[in-house]
Amino acid sequence: MKTHHYAVIFSSSLIDLDDSKYHGFSKEMLERVAAASGFLGVESYREKDGKGATISYWETLSDIQEWKQNARHLLAQKYGREEAYSSYQVRVCEVQYSYSFSK
Amino acid sequence: MKTHHYAVIFSSSLIDLDDSKYHGFSKEMLERVAAASGFLGVESYREKDGKGATISYWETLSDIQEWKQNARHLLAQKYGREEAYSSYQVRVCEVQYSYSFSK
Repeated sequence: MKTHHYAVIFSSSLIDLDDSKYHGFSKEMLERVAAASGFLGVESYREKDGKGATISYWETLSDIQEWKQNARHLLAQKYGREEAYSSYQVRVCEVQYSYSFSK
Repeated sequence: MKTHHYAVIFSSSLIDLDDSKYHGFSKEMLERVAAASGFLGVESYREKDGKGATISYWETLSDIQEWKQNARHLLAQKYGREEAYSSYQVRVCEVQYSYSFSK
């Protein structure tokens, strides 16, 4: 992955872990985001208590803005606020440096 | 939380979800980091397949460096590489902007 890139940390509290409409949107968004301009990767985690995070990686800040305005993504965001999440926090970050370990 | 701050995204693959020594280190690190200089907060998630992320928030880059060099934390990192994790990636980020939603 590029050294100079951006990360969006989306931390959320999901109300109902078994919300099938949420899972439908989630699956669709992961498919759509993979084709978005400047998209570099995504990782997603969820605990049993409903708390989780999705971290996506991007080439530029404008790629992030463009994805935020995607029509289907706007609909998913609306569903998220109205039904799926009790709260969420979004942090848009510039990656300063990174390192990794692998066996 | 402050607007200008830093995030460390620590993504990892845990080999054994039931590794009691890992859980001991994890608990100790969460207690110690709470008292570290410049520490603002932490969130941690783990999936059943062993993949997870811990995201910590910091006032400055030097606070992050200082915590990385903490003697007990160095021991935990060593255990992580030698036994607990099959791989991990660390990304040190500057938060550019953030927003949140709550019901």
